[in-house]
Amino acid sequence: MNKFPLILFVFLFLHTLSNAQVKYYDGSDFPLYGKITTETEARYERLPKTLKGEIRDRLWYLGTNSAGLYLRFRTNSTSVHAKWEVSTNTVLNHMPFVGVKGLDLYCYQDGQWLFVNSGKPTAKKTTGLIMDNMKGEMREYMLYMPLYDGLTSLEIGVDSASVLEQPVIDSPKAQKPVVFYGTSITQGGCASRPGMAYTNILGRKLDRQVINLGFSGNGQLDYEIAEVMAAADASVFVLDFVPNVNKTQILEKTEKFVNIIRAQHAETPIIIVGSILFPHSRFDLKMADVLKQKNEALKGICQKMKKEGVKKLYYVTPDKLIGLDGEATVDGIHMTDLGFTRYSEKMYPIIRKRIK
Amino acid sequence: MNKFPLILFVFLFLHTLSNAQVKYYDGSDFPLYGKITTETEARYERLPKTLKGEIRDRLWYLGTNSAGLYLRFRTNSTSVHAKWEVSTNTVLNHMPFVGVKGLDLYCYQDGQWLFVNSGKPTAKKTTGLIMDNMKGEMREYMLYMPLYDGLTSLEIGVDSASVLEQPVIDSPKAQKPVVFYGTSITQGGCASRPGMAYTNILGRKLDRQVINLGFSGNGQLDYEIAEVMAAADASVFVLDFVPNVNKTQILEKTEKFVNIIRAQHAETPIIIVGSILFPHSRFDLKMADVLKQKNEALKGICQKMKKEGVKKLYYVTPDKLIGLDGEATVDGIHMTDLGFTRYSEKMYPIIRKRIK
Repeated sequence: MNKFPLILFVFLFLHTLSNAQVKYYDGSDFPLYGKITTETEARYERLPKTLKGEIRDRLWYLGTNSAGLYLRFRTNSTSVHAKWEVSTNTVLNHMPFVGVKGLDLYCYQDGQWLFVNSGKPTAKKTTGLIMDNMKGEMREYMLYMPLYDGLTSLEIGVDSASVLEQPVIDSPKAQKPVVFYGTSITQGGCASRPGMAYTNILGRKLDRQVINLGFSGNGQLDYEIAEVMAAADASVFVLDFVPNVNKTQILEKTEKFVNIIRAQHAETPIIIVGSILFPHSRFDLKMADVLKQKNEALKGICQKMKKEGVKKLYYVTPDKLIGLDGEATVDGIHMTDLGFTRYSEKMYPIIRKRIK
Repeated sequence: MNKFPLILFVFLFLHTLSNAQVKYYDGSDFPLYGKITTETEARYERLPKTLKGEIRDRLWYLGTNSAGLYLRFRTNSTSVHAKWEVSTNTVLNHMPFVGVKGLDLYCYQDGQWLFVNSGKPTAKKTTGLIMDNMKGEMREYMLYMPLYDGLTSLEIGVDSASVLEQPVIDSPKAQKPVVFYGTSITQGGCASRPGMAYTNILGRKLDRQVINLGFSGNGQLDYEIAEVMAAADASVFVLDFVPNVNKTQILEKTEKFVNIIRAQHAETPIIIVGSILFPHSRFDLKMADVLKQKNEALKGICQKMKKEGVKKLYYVTPDKLIGLDGEATVDGIHMTDLGFTRYSEKMYPIIRKRIK
């Protein structure tokens, strides 16, 4: 054996060894997006700490779920790993654990965000490989956080011989986010993985930071949430709360909720979306009637407010938002990736038009 | 109070009471489809009992999963309920329990099958309402079974005042089924609910019974499975196994597997599908290379066999089967309802063309 192959062998061995070693970095060192305020009790939460004890307990708890939050970083690593711990280790029967409490990695390439792979949770605390065998070139990444659980710690792992750095490009553009308010559907139920929540799909499509204020079962027009929204410098507000309120609540609370936002944002477009026509309402006559009445009530309120001079208020008729084949949900109510994709395709031009 | 309202009240009360009471019927009393043979050890299984102990244990176990099976019945009930028990109470982290071990109800209306609602599993044994508040008219139903678990018992519940009867219409047409052989993806991973496995979507689209011989991780060209397929009177055979075999296995086993079927079915079309281009292979260079090599090997085998005179053998280039946006899977491999919908849209005309 002459010297050259030996040197080559040693080099390759060391190279493999260095790549095989994973170095972890705390997620706190990298910029976090999707938050309406930085004044939260813990980093990966959505509501300002001032609301603790002031709002309903369940609503506060849901605010600690990390729906819509994402980290940005760049690295030239050939692999990306993560260690993360969730708060409650939530189990739902109609949504995969990956969507509930997993991670989702995207890479910016050729001017768009592409799915890399998801981080599958195996327990309350997971250490896992997200992607391997990549070309070791510098790339920009986005890591979406769990939709239906809290994130108490997060570390990102890369090859020890590579670098993990602050992101360079501003995408999705951080300034003047689109702020969504809504229900379990808005929170991301039932996306297969975090990146497929409709707010996250729209963030990529619009190339704009989106704030997710969806609260499962609790998009009940709490005025405190309107105050939080009013404090944000948004490009557009989207209100998608109908499934969580009854007709009486719509009639009693919508106008005040909108006015709280409008008082601080005279010119910011406010888009109000009727409830999607739940596929099972084709058979459940009671549900069909409830939906019809609630959507009509909401549309009426919007018309009245516009007549009274409220500007830049837009009602979205929901009839075709998820297609007409009845296949877009897992349970008649909560959209799957199919439903969220369709919804985002329909909502994209409506929102795009209103962003200055 | 005169007599008439009192009688009316009593009538309405009794009517409500009778509707509120649910009467359960054993699923065994209704026709079961999606089986390649009736000679199984238990009713809701897929492989002939003669294979027990003869094939690999894991493959046998997967044959006891009820993927692709469905009951047919009709009823004029205003509600449909179910009681069902699964074998292993399987938990997967990338697929909702509804898809893994739930039920999925469809109704035939205006010449097509429409999603009614899914049955959400709450434990190993679940009693649950699937749909309520329907018009009490006679309708035809199809109830899909769990994709990734076995079903040891099943009862269907309807209003005690209604009737539950044998189906009248023949849809999806029972004769000359399309027989699929494949992997976890074919078995239905990771559909949100049973009806969204691609074999079930295609069954509705083609209006034709489809047999699901997908075996998670085990679509490894076992010749015993080819023998089982060869014994069936199929309209078309579709082989979609590439993700579960390596290049060597493709080169060594494909031809013999096909020939076992072809020996019994000289004229039946056999469609062979290359592996879908896993979205994560855009980044995982090793995976990209493996996929390319395996698909090329398979295509080569098909070309060789056709050159040697094997007729009605068709290779499907998989490049666009799940779209090109990278969003169709939960983990880079297993399709979500979005991926299965796209795959079915692409595969539908390919199969349709070959059904006599």
